[in-house]
Amino acid sequence: MEYQPILDCIYAERPEVPIECKVADYIPELAKVPGHKYGIHLTDVEGGQYAVGDSEEKFSAQSITKVLALTLALSLEGEEIWKRVGVEPSGDPFNSLVQLEYEDGIPRNPLINAGALVICDILISHFDDPKKGFLDFVCSLTKDKDLGYNYAVAQSEKKWGFRNAALTNLMKAYGNIHNDVEEVLDFYFHQCALEMSCRQLANVFLLYALHGQIYHNGKTLMPASYIKRINAIMQSCGFYDEAGEFSFTVGLPGKSGVGGGIVAIYPQQYSVACWSPPLNYKGNSFLGMKSLEMLTTLTGRSIF
Amino acid sequence: MEYQPILDCIYAERPEVPIECKVADYIPELAKVPGHKYGIHLTDVEGGQYAVGDSEEKFSAQSITKVLALTLALSLEGEEIWKRVGVEPSGDPFNSLVQLEYEDGIPRNPLINAGALVICDILISHFDDPKKGFLDFVCSLTKDKDLGYNYAVAQSEKKWGFRNAALTNLMKAYGNIHNDVEEVLDFYFHQCALEMSCRQLANVFLLYALHGQIYHNGKTLMPASYIKRINAIMQSCGFYDEAGEFSFTVGLPGKSGVGGGIVAIYPQQYSVACWSPPLNYKGNSFLGMKSLEMLTTLTGRSIF
Amino acid sequence: MEYQPILDCIYAERPEVPIECKVADYIPELAKVPGHKYGIHLTDVEGGQYAVGDSEEKFSAQSITKVLALTLALSLEGEEIWKRVGVEPSGDPFNSLVQLEYEDGIPRNPLINAGALVICDILISHFDDPKKGFLDFVCSLTKDKDLGYNYAVAQSEKKWGFRNAALTNLMKAYGNIHNDVEEVLDFYFHQCALEMSCRQLANVFLLYALHGQIYHNGKTLMPASYIKRINAIMQSCGFYDEAGEFSFTVGLPGKSGVGGGIVAIYPQQYSVACWSPPLNYKGNSFLGMKSLEMLTTLTGRSIF
Amino acid sequence: MEYQPILDCIYAERPEVPIECKVADYIPELAKVPGHKYGIHLTDVEGGQYAVGDSEEKFSAQSITKVLALTLALSLEGEEIWKRVGVEPSGDPFNSLVQLEYEDGIPRNPLINAGALVICDILISHFDDPKKGFLDFVCSLTKDKDLGYNYAVAQSEKKWGFRNAALTNLMKAYGNIHNDVEEVLDFYFHQCALEMSCRQLANVFLLYALHGQIYHNGKTLMPASYIKRINAIMQSCGFYDEAGEFSFTVGLPGKSGVGGGIVAIYPQQYSVACWSPPLNYKGNSFLGMKSLEMLTTLTGRSIF
Repeated sequence: MEYQPILDCIYAERPEVPIECKVADYIPELAKVPGHKYGIHLTDVEGGQYAVGDSEEKFSAQSITKVLALTLALSLEGEEIWKRVGVEPSGDPFNSLVQLEYEDGIPRNPLINAGALVICDILISHFDDPKKGFLDFVCSLTKDKDLGYNYAVAQSEKKWGFRNAALTNLMKAYGNIHNDVEEVLDFYFHQCALEMSCRQLANVFLLYALHGQIYHNGKTLMPASYIKRINAIMQSCGFYDEAGEFSFTVGLPGKSGVGGGIVAIYPQQYSVACWSPPLNYKGNSFLGMKSLEMLTTLTGRSIF
Repeated sequence: MEYQPILDCIYAERPEVPIECKVADYIPELAKVPGHKYGIHLTDVEGGQYAVGDSEEKFSAQSITKVLALTLALSLEGEEIWKRVGVEPSGDPFNSLVQLEYEDGIPRNPLINAGALVICDILISHFDDPKKGFLDFVCSLTKDKDLGYNYAVAQSEKKWGFRNAALTNLMKAYGNIHNDVEEVLDFYFHQCALEMSCRQLANVFLLYALHGQIYHNGKTLMPASYIKRINAIMQSCGFYDEAGEFSFTVGLPGKSGVGGGIVAIYPQQYSVACWSPPLNYKGNSFLGMKSLEMLTTLTGRSIF
Repeated sequence: MEYQPILDCIYAERPEVPIECKVADYIPELAKVPGHKYGIHLTDVEGGQYAVGDSEEKFSAQSITKVLALTLALSLEGEEIWKRVGVEPSGDPFNSLVQLEYEDGIPRNPLINAGALVICDILISHFDDPKKGFLDFVCSLTKDKDLGYNYAVAQSEKKWGFRNAALTNLMKAYGNIHNDVEEVLDFYFHQCALEMSCRQLANVFLLYALHGQIYHNGKTLMPASYIKRINAIMQSCGFYDEAGEFSFTVGLPGKSGVGGGIVAIYPQQYSVACWSPPLNYKGNSFLGMKSLEMLTTLTGRSIF
Repeated sequence: MEYQPILDCIYAERPEVPIECKVADYIPELAKVPGHKYGIHLTDVEGGQYAVGDSEEKFSAQSITKVLALTLALSLEGEEIWKRVGVEPSGDPFNSLVQLEYEDGIPRNPLINAGALVICDILISHFDDPKKGFLDFVCSLTKDKDLGYNYAVAQSEKKWGFRNAALTNLMKAYGNIHNDVEEVLDFYFHQCALEMSCRQLANVFLLYALHGQIYHNGKTLMPASYIKRINAIMQSCGFYDEAGEFSFTVGLPGKSGVGGGIVAIYPQQYSVACWSPPLNYKGNSFLGMKSLEMLTTLTGRSIF
C-alpha cells in the first residue's frame, strides 16, 4: 500500500488540539516541550519508510519503553516471567496499589507501572549494568544506534517518584522485588527517560509486526508466539484506562507514553509512531489517538 | 482455506479434560448436561460450513447472548448506549459491585453481568415484548429459525439470582435502570437461557466476521464501525478474568458462556463456535479454549 | 444532679443551624417535617424526667430503632447472633457493599444498614408477625404504650429503597439472609418508620443506662454483659462515619437517625434523646450533636 | 478499691495460652522473647501501685508508643493535627493503603501505622533531634527516667519495613509527609522500639486517667478535652481490627502492641499495663486481653 499520501492527508486534516489538552507538567523537563510538535513515521514490513512533520526529532519515550523492557525480559527468561506479572487488563482508573494488595503483590500486567517495575527488577538480576543492557538491546533492533537516556528527566522523575516508590516497596513486602528498591527505581526512571524519534520508534517496533524478526539483519529474536503475546497485551493494556477506547477507534495493538508518543502495529503490515505532546484527560496524546484513528480509517483496515 | 481437516485434527488430538474442570452446577438444569459433549462448527465468509462432534446439539448459550443483545441495542439506539455502559475491560476478579459503586452505577462494559443488565433495560424500553423482540432479532441473522428459550433454566436462574438482583438494584439506585427491577431480571434470565447449537452460533456470529453484513440475505445490519467496536469489546472483555489469556493463546475476539460454549471470529475469514461443558477455574470451557488455540495454531493465523 | 437548668441553658444557648444543614429529603414524607422543631428529654436512673422544647412530639425514629431491634434479637438468640453480624466499626465512608463482598456477606456491625437487615431477618425467623413482635417489645420497655409505625413513611422508603434491596440480595447470595428478600425489606422499612417522641426514646433507652433493667417494672431483660456489648457497639458504630467525632465531642454511647433524632446514654446516670431535623453533611442532626456536646460539657462528665 | 487481691486472682486463674497464639516473629529480635513472660501493673489515681508477675521487666512497647507520640504532637500543635490525620476507626482488616488512596493520603486515625507515620513527621518538624525529644517527653511523665530505645529492634524493623515505606511514600505523594521519607521511617522505628516495663507504662498512662494531669509533679500537660479525645480514639481504634471486641469484653480505652503489651485506662480510676508476648490471630496479646477482661469483671466496673 502507498502510505505517504495517507500520512500527508492526516497531516493536513488533523484536528485542532482542544485547549484542555496539556503537555505533561508533573516534572519541569517534560513541561517545557513545545506543544505544537507533531510528527508521524510509518515503516512497512517491506522496509518502506513514510513520514511527516517532526518525525526525526527525539522525545521522551516514557511508557512506550515498557514494551521493549518486557520484550527483553521475555527473551531472557521466557514464560517464567508470567509467574511474577499477569497478562490481564487492570481496568482500574484507580492506582494499582489496591489491586496489588488484593493479589499479593503480583501486578496485573507488565504495562502498568507496578508491572514495569517488576520487569526492571528482572532485568537488574540479569545485567551487571542494566541501563547499558537495555540500551544495547534497543540499539540491536535497528541500524540506527543514536540512542540515549535523558539524565535530567530521569533525575527529575526520581525526585517526584513517591508513588512508584510506594508500589516498589509494597511489592518488596510481598517478595516480588528481589533487588534493592532504590536500584529498581533508578533503572526504571532511566528506562522511561529513553529518547527516541518517531522514525526510531517505528523501526524498532517493526519487530512486533514481523512476528519477532529483526528487519535490518533478518535475525529472529524470539518465537512468534512470544510476540503475539506482547501484541495481545498491548491490545488490552496499552492505553491506561483508555485501552478499550483505543481498540475501538484505532483497532490496532499499541502503547502510549506521557511524553506524547504513541506506537501501534498492524501485524504483518506495518508499525507506526506518532508524536504530539498535549494529552487528553486520560493521559494519552490527543493528536496521536486521532492520527492513528485517521490512519486505520483511511487505509480501511484494522485487526477487527 | 480447507478447514475440515483442521477440525478433524482438533477433534482427534483434543486433550483430556482435567478432573478439576466441572460442568456448571449452580443450578440443577445446567448440572445435568453430560460433560463429555463436544462439538465445533466453523462457518467461513464464503458460506463454507465445517463441523465435528455434537455440533448440532443445542445447549444453553448463556453469556454468549450478551453480544447479541448488545448488537441489538446498538442497532436500535446507536452510540447513545455508551452513556450508560462503558467499553473498558473490568479487569477485576471480584464482583463488579465494587466497581459500580466507584463509578456511579455505570458498568465497565456490556459483557459483564452489570452491563448486560443495562442492555436488557434498554431493550425493555424498546419492545412491548422484549423476549420476543430479542428472539426475532437472533432469528433474523440466520436462515435457521429453530430457536427458543429454555424456560426451566430461566426460572432456576431467577430463583438463585440474588447477586444479579443486587447489581440491578444498585444500578437502579444510581438511576441507570429505567424499568422495573423484576422485569429486567426476568428478561435477562430468559435471554441467557436461549438455546443454540454450535452451527447456529457460528452462523449467527458470521455477522461479526462480515463487518455487519447478514450472510443469508446480504443485508447490512449496521455500520462496519459498530461491528468493529463490538469485536474490540469481545477482544478485551469476552472472557471474564481470562480475556488476556484468551487474547494470548487464541488471538481472536470471542465470548464464552457458562454453558460451556465459546464463539470466536476472525474478521473477514470465519466465525467458529465450540461446545464442551466442563469449565476451567476461571469459568471458561476448558476444551473450548484448547480447541480454539489449536485452531489458530493449525491455521497459522490470528489477528496478532 | 439537677438536669433541668442544664437543659434550659442548652435550649437558650443553642447555636444557629448552618444554612447547609438540611432536613432529609430522600423521601417526601421526611422532607416535609419542619426544620425548626427542637426538643430534648433526659431521664435519669432514679426516674427523674427533664425536658425542653418539642420533646413530646413524635418523629421518625429511623436508625435509632436498629439498637432496639438488636436488643430484641440478642434477648431472643443470645450470642449466636454474632455469627451473622460483626461487632467492629465499619469505618468506611463508602457503602457497605464493598465490605460485604470482602467479608462474605457478614456485615461489620448491627448498626449499619446491612447489619440491621440481618437482624430483621433474625426477627422474622422468630415471629409470625415481626412488626407486631417488635412493637410489643418496644412497648414493654416503657409504661407509655402509644407507639406505632408511620405506614406512609414505610411505603415511601420501600419505593426508593434500591440500595437496601441490593444489600439484602447480596447477603442472600452469601446465605446470610434466610427469609424472603421482600419480607426482610418490608419489615426493615416499617421498623425504621417507628414514630417516637424524645420522652419515649429517653425512657426506652434507660434500659442501657440501667445495665438491662426495665425501670418501670424493675424486671431484668437481659444480662448486664449483653447491655455493655450494645453500649460498646453504640460507642464505636452509632454515628455512621462520625462515630469518632461523636465519641470525641460528646463522649457517650449513642445512636442517631436520619429523622433528626439522637439518643445517648451515660451508664448508671441517665439516657437522653434530642430531636432537630436538619442534618450535617455526615447525616447526623446538627443541633442534636451540639446539644449533647453542651450536655457533657455543662455536666462536666463523660465516660472518658 | 483494693486491687492487689484482684491482680493476684487474675494471676492465679489466668487461662492457658492456646498453642496457636505465637510470639511475634517478623523480626528475630522480637521472636526470641520468652513466651511465658507475664506481668501486670496497675496504678490508681491516688498513686497506689499494684503488681504481679514480670511487671518490672522491660519489653518492646511497639504500637503502645503511638498514643504517647500522638499526645506529644497534640500538646505541641493542638487541634491543627486533625487536618493531617482523622479520628475515625479504620475498620478495615486490609491494609490502609486502600483507604489512603480513597481519602487522598489522610490516614483514618493516629493509631494505625499510616497515622502514626504522619505524627512522626509532625514531631520531626518540631525537634532537631526527634528521638531525644520523644524520649524526654515520655520521661517527663514519670519519676522513673530509666527508659531507652532498643537499637537492634529499630534496625531490624527498618530492614523489613517495606510496607511502612510504601505507606510513607504514598502519603508523601499526596503531600502529607513534609520531611524526608527515610528520616520519618527511622524515627518511627525507633519510637516503636522504646522499651518499657508494665510499671513504667502504667505510670506513664496515668496521665489519661487523670484528664491530662501528671501525677508525680501535679502539672497539667494539656486540657482535659484533649485527653478525652485521645481516650475516645483509643476506645475506637486501639486494637487493630479487634477494637470492637476489646470494647465489648474489656470496656475500657486502651492500646496494644505487637510486643505483647496492652495498656488500658479507667478514667478517674486507674491505668493498667499487662504483658504476655503470645498474640492472638488478630495480633493482640491473648493473655493481655483475657487479663483485662478479668479485671473489669472482678472489679465489676467498666465505662459501659
